[in-house]
Amino acid sequence: MSLDAAREALERLSRVIPDFPSPGISFRDLTPVFADGPALRAVTDALLEPFAGRYDVIAGVEARGFVLAASAAYASGRGVVMIRKPGKLPRAVLSEDYDLEYGSATLQVHDDELPKGTRVLLIDDVLATGGTLAASCSLIERAGWTVAGIGVVLELSALAGANKLPGRDIQSLQVV
Amino acid sequence: MSLDAAREALERLSRVIPDFPSPGISFRDLTPVFADGPALRAVTDALLEPFAGRYDVIAGVEARGFVLAASAAYASGRGVVMIRKPGKLPRAVLSEDYDLEYGSATLQVHDDELPKGTRVLLIDDVLATGGTLAASCSLIERAGWTVAGIGVVLELSALAGANKLPGRDIQSLQVV
Repeated sequence: MSLDAAREALERLSRVIPDFPSPGISFRDLTPVFADGPALRAVTDALLEPFAGRYDVIAGVEARGFVLAASAAYASGRGVVMIRKPGKLPRAVLSEDYDLEYGSATLQVHDDELPKGTRVLLIDDVLATGGTLAASCSLIERAGWTVAGIGVVLELSALAGANKLPGRDIQSLQVV
Repeated sequence: MSLDAAREALERLSRVIPDFPSPGISFRDLTPVFADGPALRAVTDALLEPFAGRYDVIAGVEARGFVLAASAAYASGRGVVMIRKPGKLPRAVLSEDYDLEYGSATLQVHDDELPKGTRVLLIDDVLATGGTLAASCSLIERAGWTVAGIGVVLELSALAGANKLPGRDIQSLQVV
């Protein structure tokens, strides 16, 4: 039910922006989906539905991922753990470096935020090359937690990001 | 009711981190509050309560503000509008520069995201010097929307940020 409503909202509201953030890249702009109350609820509910009963907390990746993860956290009555860019978290962190198409990036998490064994559902807007989500899974497991699954709004199949996430339960609302 | 629960959660879970992000600054770390499901719900509900019936959408400021704004958006059935750092939004934006203690910063918003006259509730974690929230209010009004109010978790009274927000309805869960 919520999956149909979510897909309808995504078709109606999301936009393709050519040449952003760099020439040749078509960016999927979900901001009009987030700005619409019923659409945000439908997308949030649809992201959570496949994982019902299998997670203790939601993780989101800075910055757009925080929107969906926090919405999903309220919806499910769970907390949200923030996977952040370097230097943003004030206590001891684990760091994970990963490669981008050009250059590299780093993500961090407070590894004392949750008890060992906590089941973490990772929520993000887009699965592209998979590098960010693979680094996030690594942080979750290095912290002593488990990855309950990965829920994304949009999977860009041409980039084959799922290949970087072997054995993960990935649920995408839309695959393009 | 939710205000008492929110304050109890803040007392129990938030932490003061000395000398972060720079020497002499005491940082209030809310990540343990966000990571706790009942605490996140209590804080979110308490932020919304004073503004019931007076807003159409929630605005959040990148990046920590996205967590509370999106949680509040789901809770209230409203959408969330993202006030972002430069270069992150893919369509035409309004930009607002503002002064920091050392240097300056810029925030941006998609000004076509919502209809003119939309009542925007601005939610953030901390009211410190008020510069970020004042710039956000300016963006909201330049876009043709109205500021329904400002809800923050924590107000640092020594920094007198409210002086930069004259005439605004500011509701803080905790004033220190």
